[in-house]
Amino acid sequence: MDLDLMRELSVKTDSKIVLLVLDGLGGLPMEAGGQTELEAANTPNLDSLAATSDLGLSRPVTAGVSPGSGPGHLGLFGYDPLRFQVGRGVLSALGVGFELGESDLAARVNFATLDDSGRISDRRAGRIPSEKGEGLVKLLNDNLEIEGVETFVMHEKEYRAVAVFRGEGLSGDLADSDPQRTGLEPLAVKPTEDSPETEKSAKIANAFVQQANDILAYQHPANTVLVRGFGMHPALPSFDEAYKLGAAAIASYPMYKGLARLAGMELQKEGEGIVGEFETLKKSWGGHDFFFVHVKPTDAAGEDGDFERKAKVIEEVDALIPDLLDLGPDALAITGDHATPARLKSHSWHGVPFLLHSQYTLPTAEAFGERACAGGSLGVFPAEEIMGLLMGHALKLNRFGA
Amino acid sequence: MDLDLMRELSVKTDSKIVLLVLDGLGGLPMEAGGQTELEAANTPNLDSLAATSDLGLSRPVTAGVSPGSGPGHLGLFGYDPLRFQVGRGVLSALGVGFELGESDLAARVNFATLDDSGRISDRRAGRIPSEKGEGLVKLLNDNLEIEGVETFVMHEKEYRAVAVFRGEGLSGDLADSDPQRTGLEPLAVKPTEDSPETEKSAKIANAFVQQANDILAYQHPANTVLVRGFGMHPALPSFDEAYKLGAAAIASYPMYKGLARLAGMELQKEGEGIVGEFETLKKSWGGHDFFFVHVKPTDAAGEDGDFERKAKVIEEVDALIPDLLDLGPDALAITGDHATPARLKSHSWHGVPFLLHSQYTLPTAEAFGERACAGGSLGVFPAEEIMGLLMGHALKLNRFGA
Repeated sequence: MDLDLMRELSVKTDSKIVLLVLDGLGGLPMEAGGQTELEAANTPNLDSLAATSDLGLSRPVTAGVSPGSGPGHLGLFGYDPLRFQVGRGVLSALGVGFELGESDLAARVNFATLDDSGRISDRRAGRIPSEKGEGLVKLLNDNLEIEGVETFVMHEKEYRAVAVFRGEGLSGDLADSDPQRTGLEPLAVKPTEDSPETEKSAKIANAFVQQANDILAYQHPANTVLVRGFGMHPALPSFDEAYKLGAAAIASYPMYKGLARLAGMELQKEGEGIVGEFETLKKSWGGHDFFFVHVKPTDAAGEDGDFERKAKVIEEVDALIPDLLDLGPDALAITGDHATPARLKSHSWHGVPFLLHSQYTLPTAEAFGERACAGGSLGVFPAEEIMGLLMGHALKLNRFGA
Repeated sequence: MDLDLMRELSVKTDSKIVLLVLDGLGGLPMEAGGQTELEAANTPNLDSLAATSDLGLSRPVTAGVSPGSGPGHLGLFGYDPLRFQVGRGVLSALGVGFELGESDLAARVNFATLDDSGRISDRRAGRIPSEKGEGLVKLLNDNLEIEGVETFVMHEKEYRAVAVFRGEGLSGDLADSDPQRTGLEPLAVKPTEDSPETEKSAKIANAFVQQANDILAYQHPANTVLVRGFGMHPALPSFDEAYKLGAAAIASYPMYKGLARLAGMELQKEGEGIVGEFETLKKSWGGHDFFFVHVKPTDAAGEDGDFERKAKVIEEVDALIPDLLDLGPDALAITGDHATPARLKSHSWHGVPFLLHSQYTLPTAEAFGERACAGGSLGVFPAEEIMGLLMGHALKLNRFGA
């Protein structure tokens, strides 16, 4: 999306937009001739909505490329995911619910094993259990003292953690210390570009590793840390700046809350499960003009290869559609951030079913499904265009040119 | 469109191309389950043509954005409308039929009212009638004398006029004098970029306003002018340069004549109404190899919210299609510059039905309409690609690469 154009053309109005994301919605037939998860699910409400909506297949990032949650959502929000890259460290920090500041430097941390000769013998420290990992993180937080920055270490899971360095003049242009192979010594962290900021940041990262080595010296097998995926907060123009939208986010998982916060959305306190999220939407309705609602279990079921469960989650959402429509959104998009076909048990590059409901649509089918969407009036289009479409259908864009 | 590639690959041949633009052709159903204007119109000739044509939905500018006539047509002609922006002053000058030169600076002029304290009390001078506006324009032309430039003021309608400054070293990078609100003093015109050209141009614009104030001092309520939308002739590569086409334009309205002239097309003296335009096409047939034919009333009916009238205009064009086919165009495109759904009473962002007839097509439907086009072999595609398609179908492009 051309965000400068959006900034130029967008106007503040009373109309309301909902972007309902069923994570990993796109699917595939399990065998030749079969239906996808969405096609197989019993979705009377989505189907009748489709009959008065524009349909299309949205494509995240680029042909053949399976996006992670970061680029998947940045695209949905209208940011070019190839331009605004969010480092793994930043996503990890967002994922544990850390409120990343604009000058914070984040990195993924793995506990690992060094042998007596100083070489890495296990890059995952024997996959230590989560309780052990938590304890080690506490040990680090209690003892680290790096000059010039405040240091936060947060536990993710098992041997995985994330470190955030808070200070002035930092940079994420640093190479990993993880050599990606056992039998080698860890690498010193080096700048990938020359600047006072990268030099300072590399010093801090190396001090972190050195101090961690001292602190963990007697914690075999977790007697060292490997750091990678350095990154800073991506300086995204906020929804308010780009679209003049007061945006609310309703999401249960820290990662998606974090991604929404990067876009300047206001997090709403969500209720229990999908039903709870829809209740929160209703409660938040008066205070905002854009609502991002994130439903996670579709993706989780797809990752598990559980076709039936993914279809069931879709049916659960379908049952809530009448409540959503009762709110009277002026423009409503229902889609995913990427496909997660149970067939593949992973994120994939396939087109994602996309439905846009407003008063100004050109319906082409009586059902919501991948193949109905493929023949829709929106065609196959980049996910990055979704925000432009929503802004247009909500009559929030001035005419371009005389 | 990559115009450098077109310049490289295009060859002069005997084949002839027609681009028939029904302004604002794209439409929407008036209510759920209904048909669009084009779908509802009785168009036996267009339908049978569709059955031997490529179909698609062309999208102007970008997702969700409703284009004005300027960007709409630049896109149809293969120019990137985001790169080649045509200021409102330039469009106004083109719209009154002024032959804008390449170094001319144009601006929109509104007659307005200043109160005794020098503040704007009415930005439209009480919407003075057109005869009054014409008289004031004459008064300005008779008395203005701005050093270093020749000045032309042309009347548009009521309180609206356009000024063109002809001289050397001018620039359109100037901010408006119109503060867009009453109760404020008019702004001095200031450069938006620093250069000798913008400085000179700002001086000229401010001299224009000052002299106009003196000339209009006793013409209350039209005792001042507000100037905005400064711009220069956009330096477009001509059709001859870009495509090696000797292009003719057949249009009734000054704005579209002007846009065609920007592209280096030769204006043909049109006859009365749509029938007259098609007669002109026939008469011009021998002398050119590209014909832009512009039909305005579809857009006007859409803007009026008159679904029936828009359908009737389409039927009027349909009746003339056999005459057009008798001429034997090698490649014929029928489309719009944007949608103007009667439902919205304005230009819109929706896909525009597109039909391309040649000997080398892959037909997919038996009717010409938005939904038939959505399922066409061209899919949903940027309007900027239309010229490339026409050049290809007319066999006017060499192979790219060995």
